[in-house]
Amino acid sequence: MIIEIDFNSDEAIYMQLRNQIILGIATSSIQEGEVLPSVRQLAQTVGINMHTVNKAYTVLKQEGFIQLDRRKGAVIALDADKIKAAAEMKRQLRIVLARGHCKQISREEVHALVDEIFEEYS
Amino acid sequence: MIIEIDFNSDEAIYMQLRNQIILGIATSSIQEGEVLPSVRQLAQTVGINMHTVNKAYTVLKQEGFIQLDRRKGAVIALDADKIKAAAEMKRQLRIVLARGHCKQISREEVHALVDEIFEEYS
Repeated sequence: MIIEIDFNSDEAIYMQLRNQIILGIATSSIQEGEVLPSVRQLAQTVGINMHTVNKAYTVLKQEGFIQLDRRKGAVIALDADKIKAAAEMKRQLRIVLARGHCKQISREEVHALVDEIFEEYS
Repeated sequence: MIIEIDFNSDEAIYMQLRNQIILGIATSSIQEGEVLPSVRQLAQTVGINMHTVNKAYTVLKQEGFIQLDRRKGAVIALDADKIKAAAEMKRQLRIVLARGHCKQISREEVHALVDEIFEEYS
């Protein structure tokens, strides 16, 4: 899995790291049961603070994407609370779609984008 | 327009403020040409730092949602760069959909959520 951090982005680095790991899971670059690099190792590879990696892992745990095992480290483990996941998705979609709606992106165009992205998973 | 900030959220307050204003534009609570509260006024109302409001307004300007007029203040003004907006939307959707895909939310369920949200604009 390739982690790409944009140091010029407005988005906090730990959030970018979290997103990259989620993208990795969605596209099967890393799979359920596999172990993420140790905090120290990932911090070194990406060139960021260990505290930042820790924060990303903590958020991923809270959100039900990984479990933190004292011996193995961060293991991909998806909690299957679909109702919670759908509610969270709606909250996030509401903001993304609002941005597009302000810029005249139509409902049909959004549906087309959704299809394009789902093609990336297959 | 009602601004709701969640002080317990992981999301930076200026990003929440930015999102709330974009939601306000999308749902026509505030419209093109209308003026946002002054930085001082909004900071007081919401109970946040003036610097935070300034940062939200600066990002909204960069993203083409407002113009900063020296006399009037922050005026809603949408730049119509739809190609840029669609590229940005795809980037954001890719993350939101990846999260859902990890939690078994199907393509059909995403399309249904998109429709539900678009109903809120009409």
